[in-house]
Parts: sequence; C-alpha cells; structure tokens
Amino acid sequence: MANSLTSFSSRVVCQIGLVVRDVEKSARAYAALLGVDVPAWVLTAPEEKSHIRYRGQTTQGRAKIVIFQLDNLSLELIEPVGGPSTWQEFLQTQGEGVHHIAFRIQGIDEQIASLEAKGLPLLQRGDFTGGRYAYMDSVAPLGVILELLESQPVPGDKSL
Amino acid sequence: MANSLTSFSSRVVCQIGLVVRDVEKSARAYAALLGVDVPAWVLTAPEEKSHIRYRGQTTQGRAKIVIFQLDNLSLELIEPVGGPSTWQEFLQTQGEGVHHIAFRIQGIDEQIASLEAKGLPLLQRGDFTGGRYAYMDSVAPLGVILELLESQPVPGDKSL
Repeated sequence: MANSLTSFSSRVVCQIGLVVRDVEKSARAYAALLGVDVPAWVLTAPEEKSHIRYRGQTTQGRAKIVIFQLDNLSLELIEPVGGPSTWQEFLQTQGEGVHHIAFRIQGIDEQIASLEAKGLPLLQRGDFTGGRYAYMDSVAPLGVILELLESQPVPGDKSL
Repeated sequence: MANSLTSFSSRVVCQIGLVVRDVEKSARAYAALLGVDVPAWVLTAPEEKSHIRYRGQTTQGRAKIVIFQLDNLSLELIEPVGGPSTWQEFLQTQGEGVHHIAFRIQGIDEQIASLEAKGLPLLQRGDFTGGRYAYMDSVAPLGVILELLESQPVPGDKSL
C-alpha cells in the first residue's frame, strides 16, 4: 500500500478536526484552555447547498461546527447531526477523537482523482461558503483520515 | 470540567503525533504521500537518560520515532516498544491513530502544575536531546491528549 500513494504538493496542515459528542461542551473546554471566548457553533449547510456526498450517496448528515483559529492552523470541533456521515460513523465506531488532519490544496477534483487512482478512496466531499472539501479513506495506510481543503477566499472569512 | 481548565499562552500546534504498529511501514506511506525520502527511525533514549515517567512510575517503555517536518508543524510517527507507556496503552486500547497534539510552551514544570491543579493529570513526561515533553490526560474534556513541548534549541536540530 505504501508505494501506491502518490505525492501531492501541500506541506501545510491547515486544520485538525475532532469529532465530539456535544460541541458546546467541548467548545467551552477548549475556550477555557486557550483563554478565549466560547465561539458560537454553526450548522453545515443542507445537502441542497453543500452537495454533500458520503460514500457516493446523498445524505441528510450535517454537523454543528466550532472553529478555533490558532497561530498556524485551526482546531475544528464537529458534532454530527441529522444523518449518515463520516463524522457520525467515526463517533459511533471510535467515540470522540481526532477525525482528520487537513492539507490545504488546489485543484481538488484532480487531487481526489489522483489519490483514488492510487488506492485511497474518496470517503466524503462537499462544498461550503468559500471552498470545497474532501475526506479520503486513508486510515489503513496513514492512521488518520486526510482532508483536502480548497479555499476560494472570502474577504473577512477566517474559517479556513 | 470545562471551566476548571486553565488557559495557557501557546497558540502554536507544533506537532501531531500518531501511534502506529510498524513505524517503517507507516513512514513509507507518508513519504510516498508527501513525495519525500523515507526518514530513518530513531529510538527514544533509555529511562536512565530520558527520565521517562509514565503514570508516575519509571518504565522501560520506549518508542521508535519518525518525524516529517512540514511547513507549519511536524508529523510524528510513534511505534511503542520495550514496556508500558502512553504510546503502548493507546495502541492496545484504540489501535493506530492520532495520539496527541503538541503545543510549544515554555516553563514546562509550571505548565504541568497549573494544568494538574485544574483537573488535567500528568500522564507521561520525559527528556530528549534539546528539550522536555509532557503528555496531559486531557482526553475526557478535549478528546485528545495534549502534549506540552519545551525546546532548548540545538543548532541544526529540526526535530521540533
């Protein structure tokens, strides 16, 4: 498996994503640790807008998200709601923990195709205001889900 | 629990640590993904030199380590060997995955005492060439083990 992975150009881990049971409770704990105000959670957009695909299927799966922007990356807290998703699957099978590490990339369709051709299946993808994301099923060779994050910067948006 | 955590000054996640079963195999997979040469693993120093303490006890637990230095942090692959450690415990109870996220801090003894007083017990600590580390048992409130990393820079050392 090792040699079947392709290289990609990013050297920036821009986000660590943790799946949690209660995003408000977890956000309070991180805010207290970091000495910052507790951010409000936001709900990911519905499928009609996010175009979420989980294991190739449409889904009503969504998430309550809180993001802490640190100096060199962001910490994303994710509480799955609404239906099947990689977030819900992770919580059900592994409990709370680090769900993904995200690399900032460009050309997400080409990156997905390249990684899939080399043995890392696409697990979930979707759009959000300002960009697109894809989770690759990289747990077997890499021990963690890779997220590809492509941003289309929006003035004032700090969520990436 | 949330409000019992103290704040600390670091805003830099300098490392993501993954526990793996076979560090050579995992290093090959990450090297292929990142398009770099496979680094050689190094063995953590024995207790006599590292002064490792796991749950307050001396231990013969060590680890084979591979570090990939990216642009804004390092990825650390950890294969536990030799005896009890947080790394061995993690592999036995959870399998491969993200073991810790590390914050670069200063004044490790004061940081440990402060976090312990607020309800985050010290899980493991030790010394390495160029610095000291401490893992805090923060899984319940934060979903992941926090590592405190204090470096005493060594010229040419890129391992932090």
